Amino acid sequence: MKIDNLQKLYVEELRDLHSAERQIIQALPRMIKAASSPELKSALQEHLEVTNQQLARLNQIFEKLGKKGTGKKCKGMEGVIADGKEILEEDMLPEVLDAAIISAAQHVEHYEMAGYGTVRTYAQLLGETEAMKLLQMTLDEEGDADKKLTLLAERINVEAEEPVSA
Amino acid sequence: MKIDNLQKLYVEELRDLHSAERQIIQALPRMIKAASSPELKSALQEHLEVTNQQLARLNQIFEKLGKKGTGKKCKGMEGVIADGKEILEEDMLPEVLDAAIISAAQHVEHYEMAGYGTVRTYAQLLGETEAMKLLQMTLDEEGDADKKLTLLAERINVEAEEPVSA
Repeated sequence: MKIDNLQKLYVEELRDLHSAERQIIQALPRMIKAASSPELKSALQEHLEVTNQQLARLNQIFEKLGKKGTGKKCKGMEGVIADGKEILEEDMLPEVLDAAIISAAQHVEHYEMAGYGTVRTYAQLLGETEAMKLLQMTLDEEGDADKKLTLLAERINVEAEEPVSA
Repeated sequence: MKIDNLQKLYVEELRDLHSAERQIIQALPRMIKAASSPELKSALQEHLEVTNQQLARLNQIFEKLGKKGTGKKCKGMEGVIADGKEILEEDMLPEVLDAAIISAAQHVEHYEMAGYGTVRTYAQLLGETEAMKLLQMTLDEEGDADKKLTLLAERINVEAEEPVSA
């Protein structure tokens, strides 16, 4: 298929995000299990639920477009998650692992922010008002999740600096 | 090596960024060549020069730490760049390709923002004031580059919506 206008690029980028969200839903449970801090566990658990809603929003947009969301693999998110998995396999003290998990989760969120920022702008330009609102909702959620992790990191990073479990 | 404190995690994350920057330096020339808009070409060219400076800053930090920056491959950036390469291989009209290149570049920048945001915070906590300033400088540059591309996208996306080359 020749991508000869913004509408087609929009659909391609939405498919990338659809794949990214599915990969996150698969990866998060392992990160939740590996986290020690109860606050971090619950923040990631909450983000898993939010991610499911974000995927549902994408499905809603694809339904409206009369197209399928599946069929593409987002290599970017595949790499970001591979880095996260590598972290879980490192020999780390629990406090340090928690700090590393926050870093991995923030990489995931920033990647999503770039993607949703782009498709939100495309939707606006294409006059897809309903989709634009849904995409903006997800974009706001990603920003909030990132800020929440930054706050959590303030305490967890201090614990990682001088781990009591050492 | 057991990663048993924040200092070791800091070095690991710096190595990830070192690999990420080297991958970007390798990938950007192909994107510059593929771009049609002179403004986009020059924005990417400028970013390539900035990226070289960012790598030099990381080398400076590693020298001070008495450690090597090489030896790690950032899989996250590898994936992000693989997505970008895939775009260049798609059959696209030039105006649409320019919009897609901006999107790819913004994914790269957001990924770096997550990484530099993290190591800047670690450096601050670890009392590495000099490194912190260098990392903050890079973080600011990434934010500026992202905003610049967003501005550029405003015009390029409109051209992609109704390509004159169609």
